[in-house]
Amino acid sequence: MKITTGEIATIVEGTVEGDPDVMIHGPSPIDEGKPGTVSFLSNPKYEQFLYSTNASAVLVHEDFSPLMKINPSLIRVKDVGLSIAKLFEHFSTRKVPSHHISDDAFIHEDAIISPNISVGMFSVISKGAEIGAGSVIHSHVFLGENVKIGKNVTLFPGVKIYNDCEIGDNCVFHSNVVIGSDGFGFSKDSSGNYEKIPHLGKVIIESDVEIGSNSTVDRGTIGDTIIRKGVKLDNLVQIAHNAEIGENTVMAAQSGVAGSSKVGKNCVIGGQVGIIGHLKIADGTMIQGQSGVTRNVRKENSKLYGTPAISYQSYLKSYAHFRTLPDIAKELATLRKEIERLKLINNPQNPEKK
Amino acid sequence: MKITTGEIATIVEGTVEGDPDVMIHGPSPIDEGKPGTVSFLSNPKYEQFLYSTNASAVLVHEDFSPLMKINPSLIRVKDVGLSIAKLFEHFSTRKVPSHHISDDAFIHEDAIISPNISVGMFSVISKGAEIGAGSVIHSHVFLGENVKIGKNVTLFPGVKIYNDCEIGDNCVFHSNVVIGSDGFGFSKDSSGNYEKIPHLGKVIIESDVEIGSNSTVDRGTIGDTIIRKGVKLDNLVQIAHNAEIGENTVMAAQSGVAGSSKVGKNCVIGGQVGIIGHLKIADGTMIQGQSGVTRNVRKENSKLYGTPAISYQSYLKSYAHFRTLPDIAKELATLRKEIERLKLINNPQNPEKK
Amino acid sequence: MKITTGEIATIVEGTVEGDPDVMIHGPSPIDEGKPGTVSFLSNPKYEQFLYSTNASAVLVHEDFSPLMKINPSLIRVKDVGLSIAKLFEHFSTRKVPSHHISDDAFIHEDAIISPNISVGMFSVISKGAEIGAGSVIHSHVFLGENVKIGKNVTLFPGVKIYNDCEIGDNCVFHSNVVIGSDGFGFSKDSSGNYEKIPHLGKVIIESDVEIGSNSTVDRGTIGDTIIRKGVKLDNLVQIAHNAEIGENTVMAAQSGVAGSSKVGKNCVIGGQVGIIGHLKIADGTMIQGQSGVTRNVRKENSKLYGTPAISYQSYLKSYAHFRTLPDIAKELATLRKEIERLKLINNPQNPEKK
Repeated sequence: MKITTGEIATIVEGTVEGDPDVMIHGPSPIDEGKPGTVSFLSNPKYEQFLYSTNASAVLVHEDFSPLMKINPSLIRVKDVGLSIAKLFEHFSTRKVPSHHISDDAFIHEDAIISPNISVGMFSVISKGAEIGAGSVIHSHVFLGENVKIGKNVTLFPGVKIYNDCEIGDNCVFHSNVVIGSDGFGFSKDSSGNYEKIPHLGKVIIESDVEIGSNSTVDRGTIGDTIIRKGVKLDNLVQIAHNAEIGENTVMAAQSGVAGSSKVGKNCVIGGQVGIIGHLKIADGTMIQGQSGVTRNVRKENSKLYGTPAISYQSYLKSYAHFRTLPDIAKELATLRKEIERLKLINNPQNPEKK
Repeated sequence: MKITTGEIATIVEGTVEGDPDVMIHGPSPIDEGKPGTVSFLSNPKYEQFLYSTNASAVLVHEDFSPLMKINPSLIRVKDVGLSIAKLFEHFSTRKVPSHHISDDAFIHEDAIISPNISVGMFSVISKGAEIGAGSVIHSHVFLGENVKIGKNVTLFPGVKIYNDCEIGDNCVFHSNVVIGSDGFGFSKDSSGNYEKIPHLGKVIIESDVEIGSNSTVDRGTIGDTIIRKGVKLDNLVQIAHNAEIGENTVMAAQSGVAGSSKVGKNCVIGGQVGIIGHLKIADGTMIQGQSGVTRNVRKENSKLYGTPAISYQSYLKSYAHFRTLPDIAKELATLRKEIERLKLINNPQNPEKK
Repeated sequence: MKITTGEIATIVEGTVEGDPDVMIHGPSPIDEGKPGTVSFLSNPKYEQFLYSTNASAVLVHEDFSPLMKINPSLIRVKDVGLSIAKLFEHFSTRKVPSHHISDDAFIHEDAIISPNISVGMFSVISKGAEIGAGSVIHSHVFLGENVKIGKNVTLFPGVKIYNDCEIGDNCVFHSNVVIGSDGFGFSKDSSGNYEKIPHLGKVIIESDVEIGSNSTVDRGTIGDTIIRKGVKLDNLVQIAHNAEIGENTVMAAQSGVAGSSKVGKNCVIGGQVGIIGHLKIADGTMIQGQSGVTRNVRKENSKLYGTPAISYQSYLKSYAHFRTLPDIAKELATLRKEIERLKLINNPQNPEKK
């Protein structure tokens, strides 16, 4: 798995400044850099570590100028983040399972299985399910009837997908993700009991979507719940019935979108954010962690914070004053006293006056 | 699966206004209504779509008067919500699995299995477990020793129920729900290490309870955790040890109740709400999403918001002023200056005075 | 399973005040105490129930003095909490499965299995995985390649552990916990699409760690995610890539720590708390439920509240004034009017003046 700095430069389409023949056996963080490893400088806050790191090579932006002499070779690249992704891919030791269908999996005779797929132990592929070429279904996975899985999809152990849901190419779902469970829809009858509303829709997940462990996506009531191309959901995220998440939107852990809300493209949604139902959130909206969005967001690229969420800047300004509310209350009481005194002075009946 | 508008009226106990012989093959949302489908108008905000929808029939409240001429047939009903539930049930294509016990399931010889049940592949039914008539246990389900499952219960793939827990009739638990795991109870010893408190209680879930994907209900320490009849929990909800959730209470996704709290009947608890331990929450309490309840709620039908939660109206009023805190602070500073000026004017030593 | 009060005193290293020969068959809560059971008084709020309980014996602190005559025998102990833990252990009926490796489990021929372990049905132990003596792997568990499990570990049904992760002795993971899924790391390319960053690190969990149902711990990008000795995580908790949780820290349900944050020892983190990425949280920090921590916490034993989190006392004080903001705004408007009136009086051009 060893590789030279020069070969790394080729992989990341960069240029070496220093010895191109240093042998590198893996990556390391710049603040814990070890000889024989390649590190990287993407966050400027970490620049201090560049001058003391023991890493043998460091990926930097092509325009970077060091402030003093440094020991490691530099590999200059256009985009440090993307170069890390490529380089880590190179060093990744995750075995792609050789294509193998376990004898201990159950595959219905009417399922449609492409060549070159893997199915792990104790997985269940139901009647009418389809799996595209190159997909890897790990152990303990359940695919309901007529589920469609695209090409090169990876489903980690314990993923459960209910009947009729459709998953695009290159998706990755981590362990115990649930897709297509019934939405939270009930109708109250006259005696106050709830009657279940059957969910006739399904979930459609487009290509290049990654979903973190134990996240849940409910099926639509009528019409479908839709996750567009390139969406990334972190762990323990909840997407309710009939919601739609726009292309390349990312949602951090433990955030949730309630029923029928439509989130735009390229949004960045922080951890533990909640978005209530039936809203439209414009493209490029950024929502700070733990915010609660209760209104439509019409302006693109808005930045929000708070519960209920207002503009990020407004929330921070108001919160700064919130912290001084005891002082504000005290000053108000002082002003009250001083005004009473002034009123007394200015009162013609006041004996002090005259 | 086709049906006439007249037959629909019979199912929902309504009356047709228009042609009772139109063929309908499924439902559609009113804003995306298609010919040959039945739509519905339950939320008045959507009335505008009634006048342009292409749906062939629309369910409306029996007292509804359209503002202008409309194309679809109307089916007038007492309760649109309940009628939807009934109608969707009719159109639902979810196959009820024919009663079948998989050869690939493990059923202990001392488990008690009623007639007409299903057990899916790779499920485990432990010693002493009981399953009531008509229940459907999907794949990858685990039932611990002496677990009791009522009649007509549905456990979706991956549900895990620890030993001794009791589940009532007609319950539905979605994938990867966990019932009966140990509560979060530890005792700190003199060296600062935590010693586990064994959990001797169990979970009792009464009838007609639905629990969403990946939700968790912990067993009691001593005494039991209890979920009463008709409760509905959304996805990723947490119920801690010895909590009790009252009849027909609903809890939205990612909400949680801490240890030993007793939530009343008919409460409506929003998404991401947290209720701390050892509280009593009165019947009919409504808690806005993301609120944090830290005190007993004694008055029935209270409406709460905020962290810590106060009355809904109070929170919204205070929050409106929170948004203007920078203005409040500025006005306070201005008043201070004006008062200083007035004090100067009113000071007998002030040369300006005289 | 019956035992006398005298034998209980021996187990908990306490002294009986009253009859040492009363037969006890189990514990009960003091407010629902029944004859033939032992109860306990650890929270002083519950002292009232001591005087009316029907429990036959009650564990109390060795220095406790009752305010009036009581019926039950008292068992005086140094630490009521620890004594409960010991006593409950005695009464616990959870069967330790006799060591048995199910024929329906899959164990790779190159896995390393110690004596006296159990492996439940439909579990998968991959190539190179190791399991220490006395460990109990329940059903539907997945252990990836080269996973190392220490001694006396319990993995409840449905736990999934990805390749290369290391778990210390005496750990307990509840159902559907996921360890070692990929962190949430993506790099945006020039067309706005996210490219996945492979995760080369792993998860290291030290000994005596308990993790609640459906919680998730992601593997490191480079370097590892680390959970130190004695940590206790409740249900539905999220630990992101490269985070580190210090010794004996406890985190309540639905809380989360974002990427690369280092949480100190002996911290107490409330439910639904969020800690953003790249922070350091000092030892002994206490964080109130639902708080959002956005800055380093440098001072040990700090107590925090709010979003963004400030000191607990400050938050409560400010929040008390937040609740009166409508009054503050009204008073401010009144002062404004009174000042205008005073300015008028003090204006030399004012005809009222003179």
